[in-house]
Amino acid sequence: MEVVETVQEMQQICEAIRLAGETIALVPTMGFLHQGHLELMRVGRRHADKLIISIFVNPSQFGPGEDLDQYPRDREGDLEKARKVGVDLVFMPSAPEMYQEGYQTRVQLEKLPRHLCGLSRPGHFDGVATVVAKLFNITRPHIAVFGQKDYQQLTVISRMVMDLNMDIRIIGVPTIREPDGLAMSSRNSYLNPGERKSALSLKKSMDLALELFREGERRPGVIIDAVRSLISGHPFTEIDYVALCDPVTLDSVEVLGERNLLAMAVRVGKTRLIDNCLLQNGSDRDDHI
Amino acid sequence: MEVVETVQEMQQICEAIRLAGETIALVPTMGFLHQGHLELMRVGRRHADKLIISIFVNPSQFGPGEDLDQYPRDREGDLEKARKVGVDLVFMPSAPEMYQEGYQTRVQLEKLPRHLCGLSRPGHFDGVATVVAKLFNITRPHIAVFGQKDYQQLTVISRMVMDLNMDIRIIGVPTIREPDGLAMSSRNSYLNPGERKSALSLKKSMDLALELFREGERRPGVIIDAVRSLISGHPFTEIDYVALCDPVTLDSVEVLGERNLLAMAVRVGKTRLIDNCLLQNGSDRDDHI
Repeated sequence: MEVVETVQEMQQICEAIRLAGETIALVPTMGFLHQGHLELMRVGRRHADKLIISIFVNPSQFGPGEDLDQYPRDREGDLEKARKVGVDLVFMPSAPEMYQEGYQTRVQLEKLPRHLCGLSRPGHFDGVATVVAKLFNITRPHIAVFGQKDYQQLTVISRMVMDLNMDIRIIGVPTIREPDGLAMSSRNSYLNPGERKSALSLKKSMDLALELFREGERRPGVIIDAVRSLISGHPFTEIDYVALCDPVTLDSVEVLGERNLLAMAVRVGKTRLIDNCLLQNGSDRDDHI
Repeated sequence: MEVVETVQEMQQICEAIRLAGETIALVPTMGFLHQGHLELMRVGRRHADKLIISIFVNPSQFGPGEDLDQYPRDREGDLEKARKVGVDLVFMPSAPEMYQEGYQTRVQLEKLPRHLCGLSRPGHFDGVATVVAKLFNITRPHIAVFGQKDYQQLTVISRMVMDLNMDIRIIGVPTIREPDGLAMSSRNSYLNPGERKSALSLKKSMDLALELFREGERRPGVIIDAVRSLISGHPFTEIDYVALCDPVTLDSVEVLGERNLLAMAVRVGKTRLIDNCLLQNGSDRDDHI
């Protein structure tokens, strides 16, 4: 496994891989790898000849007052995990390597970021789309793998790829959870034991919503109220949003249809957690889009 | 010479060219080809194994009230000219092929569009950057060729390529002029004989500026006044802007330095014409950046 820190070297390596007729899978990450990341890598591994991951805590997707400075990092642990899962190349650039003097370009989506997390994190999805566009241009992947846990991110990137005619297949991978149901996230490391317990309310509220949906409830308001009420009953929680929306456009729905996205962001203590699941006919699973 | 109208076919062809180890040069155009375009193609021809041109009148770079509907078109004439100059592939998509349902992504530069033409054409350079990013992703060129006549466009695209890590070499080609000095432009076809004569004032004013600069004048205001005054002395002219700026950042300069861009936009009748030249030590040429 090779670790590459400059754009130019990465581009040369990837161009050579492509010229040799081999395919590339990319898994972009911000590091502090957990089982969720490793699952993305295993999926990438199965779909291409060469597996590349990027580890880059991208400043432009953090807002003022967000956790850029304290975002957890573990370079050696990450490399060890990547090696074990069969990664071929790790791209680990510095921020100045990615954003050179005079930098001024961003990729912006008009509608998708105006929903869900985009409302409380203005500019976040511009930052995500832009850095992912850069990583795509640097590593030239045939496929790229993202987690469904960051559902809105997945829709933003899928739409960008389609709109900008990037010849890349985007694969969304179901959320990996702790045994008790908490969605894996690097930010879980911020939680103290009491908060960790309250954090389970997200998954419990989704189970409740799935049950209501299975029983025939189709009024978004009723389901959202039940979800909010369950979460609010747990200490340290402060709901940012709970939304039921179209899984493609992320527009709110008046009445639930065949496929609906239930998405939420909840502050538990100082830690902002997100989770989501699909409410759809004939399924109580949240594992496919 | 092959004419391709769909994104998917173009991508397949270009991927095959790359896999065969051949290089690609792209010349993006809006058609109605003149000698300026043909010169870009000749330069492209010399730099790569395969020469691709695109012909696409991109709606998203025209503002409300601009000349999108009347922009001149000549499909058969264009194909004939392209064939003669040795083009291998012409990409001629429809607008719906380029902007599919739900389209919502744009590439935006923060600073460069806030100068010169960007001020009277808000959104224009976002439209240009976005469509060029798309064309790059569709044709995957090793080099792309643009005219220095659209100087601000050239700086926007060069900066985008750098910022988004597109592995593409951008070549700027000196402006081609009619024998009397008028810069070649598809929009020259709008001019009636009286306007055509007044349109020469742009080149004459640049010659005057070059002369003042050679004589040692370094005050931007003096040169700009001379330019404005010469142009205003011609009938049918209405100056949009005359600017002296840094040729990289396009920021206005207080005192002229080693290299300075003189750029102007002038309405002649209803036709908006642009032109530019470099004022630099040891040269009265406008033919290199």
